[in-house]
Amino acid sequence: MLIENVSPAEIERRSMEIIESELGDTSHLTEQEKIIVKRVIHTTADFDYLQNMNFSENAVSDALKAIKGGAVFVTDTNMALAGISKPALEFLNCKAYCFTGDSDVSEQAKNLGITRSVAAIDKAVKNLCGKKIIFAIGNAPTALIRLHELISSGDIAPALVIGVPVGFVNAEQSKEIIMTDNVPYIISAGRKGGSTVSAAICNALLYMLYKR
Amino acid sequence: MLIENVSPAEIERRSMEIIESELGDTSHLTEQEKIIVKRVIHTTADFDYLQNMNFSENAVSDALKAIKGGAVFVTDTNMALAGISKPALEFLNCKAYCFTGDSDVSEQAKNLGITRSVAAIDKAVKNLCGKKIIFAIGNAPTALIRLHELISSGDIAPALVIGVPVGFVNAEQSKEIIMTDNVPYIISAGRKGGSTVSAAICNALLYMLYKR
Repeated sequence: MLIENVSPAEIERRSMEIIESELGDTSHLTEQEKIIVKRVIHTTADFDYLQNMNFSENAVSDALKAIKGGAVFVTDTNMALAGISKPALEFLNCKAYCFTGDSDVSEQAKNLGITRSVAAIDKAVKNLCGKKIIFAIGNAPTALIRLHELISSGDIAPALVIGVPVGFVNAEQSKEIIMTDNVPYIISAGRKGGSTVSAAICNALLYMLYKR
Repeated sequence: MLIENVSPAEIERRSMEIIESELGDTSHLTEQEKIIVKRVIHTTADFDYLQNMNFSENAVSDALKAIKGGAVFVTDTNMALAGISKPALEFLNCKAYCFTGDSDVSEQAKNLGITRSVAAIDKAVKNLCGKKIIFAIGNAPTALIRLHELISSGDIAPALVIGVPVGFVNAEQSKEIIMTDNVPYIISAGRKGGSTVSAAICNALLYMLYKR
């Protein structure tokens, strides 16, 4: 039955209640991790994320500290960028970027024979040098692999890596590799993820510090 | 094992092969419908869409006819808009719009006590009068309900309604209502869907006419 005359905020509240009631055992999650998982389920209607989501120790509190210090978010798709709450970013004095569609990134990718996603990571690292960066990767396994290389070599130390590429080739493997790195991470193990999942995790973090 | 040095095009080809090999029985789908379902699964890694997706008779061929005639796409989120292939739109002389974030839409919504998604549909209908419109709704049940009202009253006759809002309150119901209308539709029954699903369906249609 259609429920009429309810505000979007009320719909979200009721949705979260339904998710809570159907979640089952969440004893493997901290309270903050559970908030993130619930927002991902809210975005996908897919309860697989209760088991899929992996958090490094203190990933959420580390990320919140970075956000309070004006972290920048870097996404690998314009879709994810479009999905991150602009009022929350503004309130928290944070910025979000996606370089994947930039013409100089396309050119660099072509010249070097790398994917645009990799070239976009390199541009982010160069242009945002000195910033605390939260990378939100929902699409390109190659972007995660590039982050792994830069973390391993000591060239970058991201505030957080959100690694949720969706896919059937290399997505799962790229996420497993990041989980071996010494970096705060939030990862959806297996094939599932995507730009909406990536944006949902960013928003879940932001909403812990920004009351709508 | 990570597969190295493969192009994004090759990764997509192999992904589609994996999806095909795991799909199971697709006898309820036409060849064109199957292409759309496979792209949705490619975008979500969620095989539930094999059973979830509902197509009205000739929905795909009707939509392709509209696209060949320069149809316009109207989405309910900037995320979905960002996800639709710009080269394909340009090649096919089609345009895509999202009015949900417009300031006049916010104002209208506030004044009338309706959601921004409903006000955005009203703006689309007014501004794009005379155009063949493909509505791609991945988020707001209220947008689908508004489309239902306008279709029922004879005010609009969309070329296609892509109805894939995700959610726990009203999403399922709004999709059931559209399926009673006399309109070409592509609908994900139940709770699942979202902006990436909506964009994937638009792209699946565009790619039938635009070879990348």
